[in-house]
Amino acid sequence: MHIFYTPDITQPVYALNEEESKHCIKVLRLPIGALIYLVDGKGGFYTAEIISDNPKKVQLNIVKAELGYGKQNHYLHIAIAPTKNNDRLEWFLEKATELGIDEITPLICDRSERRVVKTDRLSKVITSAVKQSIKAYHPVINEAIHYNDFLKLPFEGDQLIAHCINTGEKEFIANLVKPHQKYLILIGPEGDFTPDEVNLALNKGYKAITLGDNRLRTETAALSACFEVNYINR
Amino acid sequence: MHIFYTPDITQPVYALNEEESKHCIKVLRLPIGALIYLVDGKGGFYTAEIISDNPKKVQLNIVKAELGYGKQNHYLHIAIAPTKNNDRLEWFLEKATELGIDEITPLICDRSERRVVKTDRLSKVITSAVKQSIKAYHPVINEAIHYNDFLKLPFEGDQLIAHCINTGEKEFIANLVKPHQKYLILIGPEGDFTPDEVNLALNKGYKAITLGDNRLRTETAALSACFEVNYINR
Repeated sequence: MHIFYTPDITQPVYALNEEESKHCIKVLRLPIGALIYLVDGKGGFYTAEIISDNPKKVQLNIVKAELGYGKQNHYLHIAIAPTKNNDRLEWFLEKATELGIDEITPLICDRSERRVVKTDRLSKVITSAVKQSIKAYHPVINEAIHYNDFLKLPFEGDQLIAHCINTGEKEFIANLVKPHQKYLILIGPEGDFTPDEVNLALNKGYKAITLGDNRLRTETAALSACFEVNYINR
Repeated sequence: MHIFYTPDITQPVYALNEEESKHCIKVLRLPIGALIYLVDGKGGFYTAEIISDNPKKVQLNIVKAELGYGKQNHYLHIAIAPTKNNDRLEWFLEKATELGIDEITPLICDRSERRVVKTDRLSKVITSAVKQSIKAYHPVINEAIHYNDFLKLPFEGDQLIAHCINTGEKEFIANLVKPHQKYLILIGPEGDFTPDEVNLALNKGYKAITLGDNRLRTETAALSACFEVNYINR
């Protein structure tokens, strides 16, 4: 099943860009008449027939269009401190895209060792996972933002913060939230959030959650939160 | 918190091997009197005081011993076809160790592209995750085995197979099993199990499970199964 990511989709006829045309004709060696599949990242899933095999500009005839393909009944936004090792953040993005996530924001915290994030590269990782796992919705990756500034942004839904500080009450997500909601979950850096950061969130109405007794790496904690939200919404 | 993996622990006095002694004195620069922590991989969690700082043979005095540290109330064995890209299998082992797993068996299936597995290297990956996530139990990694041979081995507990073939009934794990049991879950290669492999398992009494509607990579499916078992057992 050959999937192409085409956010600029047009109907009833569409042309692949030069890179994807080359991939389609030179790599996949698909002939005129072959069917390929397009996702626009906004819920559109299209079946298209190759009508011209120009390796620089493959012309397609859209034969079927499904909108809202695989639409989730909830919305998950995870704001995560970038890991020291960038591979770990990219790994999280790939896995979260497979499992289901809507929005990711890299969060620069007091204890963040890495404070610069190349979101264009992260977006490519997500796009590749979108195609591999056949998602019609492309998760949004926001520009990195400082923790305090992020907490000033409005969010309609359940606001949760996962931290490892032993003080204060913490609950499992499943005990705190209902299914079919919008969720925003904060995941801290290696070394965790500072007590000030946690208190700031609690004062803003965030609820503290635990992901269990395991000592999880940042990216594992974020994926675990992603698992839980999808689990309680299925 | 400095954790050392010491399967050959002795009491009341123990000496670190040359590599760990060097790490302890030259890298961590720990002095006589400092406390470090030892896990034996079999549930033993030890607090030890440095009584000699010989960088080739650090002598320790065990001051506290906890047995059955972090013991789980269930047992999870995942048999997984090795991924084409070895990093993906290693990634799964690291994450499963963080989240909780007891035993892993690399499974050579009809459609396995990679049929040779270096379990000594995989064991090192697990050991590193054991130390990082402070686990007193070291998950067991078995030698790779062919699918049909593996299914001949006895197992007392819930035997489950996760596959993507559309025929036949499938259930979510949580709807099939009780908490506090022993679970064995089969995870197939890229390209899935063959229908013959699935039928062989079903005839052996395995139950077919689904991990949801998402199209998951092999290692993501395995971690998803690991997450679900830990979720229903917490």
